[in-house]
Amino acid sequence: MANLILYELGGLDDRRYSQFSWRTRMALAHKGFAFETVPVRVSDKTAISFSNQDKVPILKDGERVVIDSWKIAEYLEDTYPERASLFGGKTGRGLARFVNAFVDRVLIPKLVPLVMLDVLAIVDAPDGAHLRSGIEKAFRKTLEEMAAQREAGLTDFRGALDPVRATLRAQSFLCGDAPAYADYILFSLFQWARIVSSVDVLAPDDAIVPWRERMLDLFGGLARSQAARSLEAAA
Amino acid sequence: MANLILYELGGLDDRRYSQFSWRTRMALAHKGFAFETVPVRVSDKTAISFSNQDKVPILKDGERVVIDSWKIAEYLEDTYPERASLFGGKTGRGLARFVNAFVDRVLIPKLVPLVMLDVLAIVDAPDGAHLRSGIEKAFRKTLEEMAAQREAGLTDFRGALDPVRATLRAQSFLCGDAPAYADYILFSLFQWARIVSSVDVLAPDDAIVPWRERMLDLFGGLARSQAARSLEAAA
Repeated sequence: MANLILYELGGLDDRRYSQFSWRTRMALAHKGFAFETVPVRVSDKTAISFSNQDKVPILKDGERVVIDSWKIAEYLEDTYPERASLFGGKTGRGLARFVNAFVDRVLIPKLVPLVMLDVLAIVDAPDGAHLRSGIEKAFRKTLEEMAAQREAGLTDFRGALDPVRATLRAQSFLCGDAPAYADYILFSLFQWARIVSSVDVLAPDDAIVPWRERMLDLFGGLARSQAARSLEAAA
Repeated sequence: MANLILYELGGLDDRRYSQFSWRTRMALAHKGFAFETVPVRVSDKTAISFSNQDKVPILKDGERVVIDSWKIAEYLEDTYPERASLFGGKTGRGLARFVNAFVDRVLIPKLVPLVMLDVLAIVDAPDGAHLRSGIEKAFRKTLEEMAAQREAGLTDFRGALDPVRATLRAQSFLCGDAPAYADYILFSLFQWARIVSSVDVLAPDDAIVPWRERMLDLFGGLARSQAARSLEAAA
């Protein structure tokens, strides 16, 4: 049996909020693996000095170290082909890469700036300062300025989801009748938002909502078991 | 052997310019089928009255009539599973549907209005009047107004191709190492633009250009054999 350890961002109260890490978590569960996790702070990455770089998620499989969520998915698929497939073959892998690019390059830049201010409440002060500085430099605005544009920004974000919505009106998952890695890529964004913010980034009647519920239910409720910010706020 | 007939839009000099039809043409070639084609005019669809509706492409396979490019692709895959796969399995089919939605709902609305005025030169007057009326009603602008916004519009269109570009920097086709139906969906838009307009909708150094060349080369240059407007203009 593989000895798998996932190094990922950890916030206050041990919240595991990294969207990229959630791609890997769902991929590991899809392959039926039990795995350990090690939280890493944004501002203190000594825990991952073994990897000779400073990015998470990192998957350690015995002595093997794999960095980058997409490469981890490919590694798992290629190393454990006898387990449930993440891509459903070569064509599915090619198209999952397109979904990865769509989420990373279209959806994330629209959503992250709107919600990033909320992240400061679930990380400690040094991590918050580190995140603020990185995001404010990337977007050339303060987190407060970006949060102030939330309403218009969410309209834009929801508009960009239009092809996702059309797809999920026709089938249960992005990958068809059953979920696979491309679903986890997309879901990771909603899971991140769910963990860090009390704002629901989808309208209640959005056709994507039932899919998000199905994703939260997968693997015995793996993703749902991570506390949602909104539920806490309501409690 | 199947007796396949494709009913599709035909313009002046027998130009076959429908992008949806090109999806089917490439799919048929992918499956290794020879097929007949029947041109249909936008303003006179008596040729397809047998189908009890007015949309092309239509695939006739013996007595079976299949309408809608996506449904035709699914029909071909399900009816001829022993031939080269269009989807590469269930996951690939699910994700191809997402690409279909992305092209139809994100890319087409950005590109078609910019180039539609050019289409009038490759169809006869009644077809031109029919196309003008339909598109002007849909976009609430004249074709001339839309063509005047071409420069800014092309910048926006090229921007929307960003996730495609990132994918094609990492692999030869949208579907990975080899082309499949999702590539044909995307290609159909460029093939349409190539046939109807002398404007290149991609910048010469765009990373998508080499992929478009590979697509034009497929199946003995099937798509390239359809005269390009730009080549004629240069001749």
